Amino acid sequence: MPRVSQDHLDARRRQILDGARACFARHGYEGATVRRLEEATGLSRGAIFHHFRDKESLFLALAEDDALRMADVVAEQGLVQVMRDLLEEPAKRDEEHAADWLGTRLEVSRRLRTDPDFRARWAERSEQLTAATRQRLLRQREAGNLRDDVDVTVLTSFLELVLEGLVSHLAMGLPADDMEPVLDLVEETVRRHRRSS
Amino acid sequence: MPRVSQDHLDARRRQILDGARACFARHGYEGATVRRLEEATGLSRGAIFHHFRDKESLFLALAEDDALRMADVVAEQGLVQVMRDLLEEPAKRDEEHAADWLGTRLEVSRRLRTDPDFRARWAERSEQLTAATRQRLLRQREAGNLRDDVDVTVLTSFLELVLEGLVSHLAMGLPADDMEPVLDLVEETVRRHRRSS
Repeated sequence: MPRVSQDHLDARRRQILDGARACFARHGYEGATVRRLEEATGLSRGAIFHHFRDKESLFLALAEDDALRMADVVAEQGLVQVMRDLLEEPAKRDEEHAADWLGTRLEVSRRLRTDPDFRARWAERSEQLTAATRQRLLRQREAGNLRDDVDVTVLTSFLELVLEGLVSHLAMGLPADDMEPVLDLVEETVRRHRRSS
Repeated sequence: MPRVSQDHLDARRRQILDGARACFARHGYEGATVRRLEEATGLSRGAIFHHFRDKESLFLALAEDDALRMADVVAEQGLVQVMRDLLEEPAKRDEEHAADWLGTRLEVSRRLRTDPDFRARWAERSEQLTAATRQRLLRQREAGNLRDDVDVTVLTSFLELVLEGLVSHLAMGLPADDMEPVLDLVEETVRRHRRSS
């Protein structure tokens, strides 16, 4: 029954990714030993590395998985909504793996800074979010919701830069309770022209 | 001659800070050993720790020094100009210690993430930049250059968030040659209302 088998493989893969996400977030990349990955996933190293060639491949799959999920939110609701979700995450912590997403993202940022090989492998996989943001903005422009005096490429870079700032801000444990009106301002900046007062 | 003596002390302090800045930027906080600090400053450990109680105090003095210099630029030219200067820094590298400033800033970010004690000590010292940004914006509002439909606190947080994103972006070694129009957009966002098209 190949269909059942594929479902089983997919479920197993999901189980590994979910466990590994929590493990990387808690211990960082170096600290996520094979032993800890076994504990976090509830699977043997044999089972884990049947699905992923090595730890780096597992981490990249995870980061890619997160980027795709984020791209889905962007496609539906825009990048500013992704940022609003980030702000709400501390409240959701322990409930879902929402906070783990931030952990993965920080680990990606750290390794991008310190590991040129990782940077090269990641570059190939990090286009989804930019593409999703850009496509969403193009649709918004067609719908007449977007300002039309600034290139979509510039607006995309602007939103990504603010997201990067927000991730960094949260990572440093700085207070974020005053961020909602800032995100309102960001959203309004990419929208159709305001009326002159 | 106490005046000469004070000048001498100030010059010595400056010499230590300049050498240490390059040293921390090159080796990171942990990697900046006392031996390397001696080499970088051209002074003995006795001389260095006559001026600064310990390595942490030296690092904090450096970070504070950078924040004050940045606050000066903000007061004169605004936070967006600080960001524009950051973009130009790779070109100036080796010429001045401009790039070292980014190194210190990244080290601050890293330690804020990983070291709660440092976070507490840094919080006391990190208000200058926010204060300078806020004061500059208030003056700009009085001069009629600033939009008046958004609170200055929100505009200040917005600019700081974008700066944080830019620092993170540069730290990850991502391309920044397309950032000028993004900063134009940021600058325009805090300015007086555009006319409706």
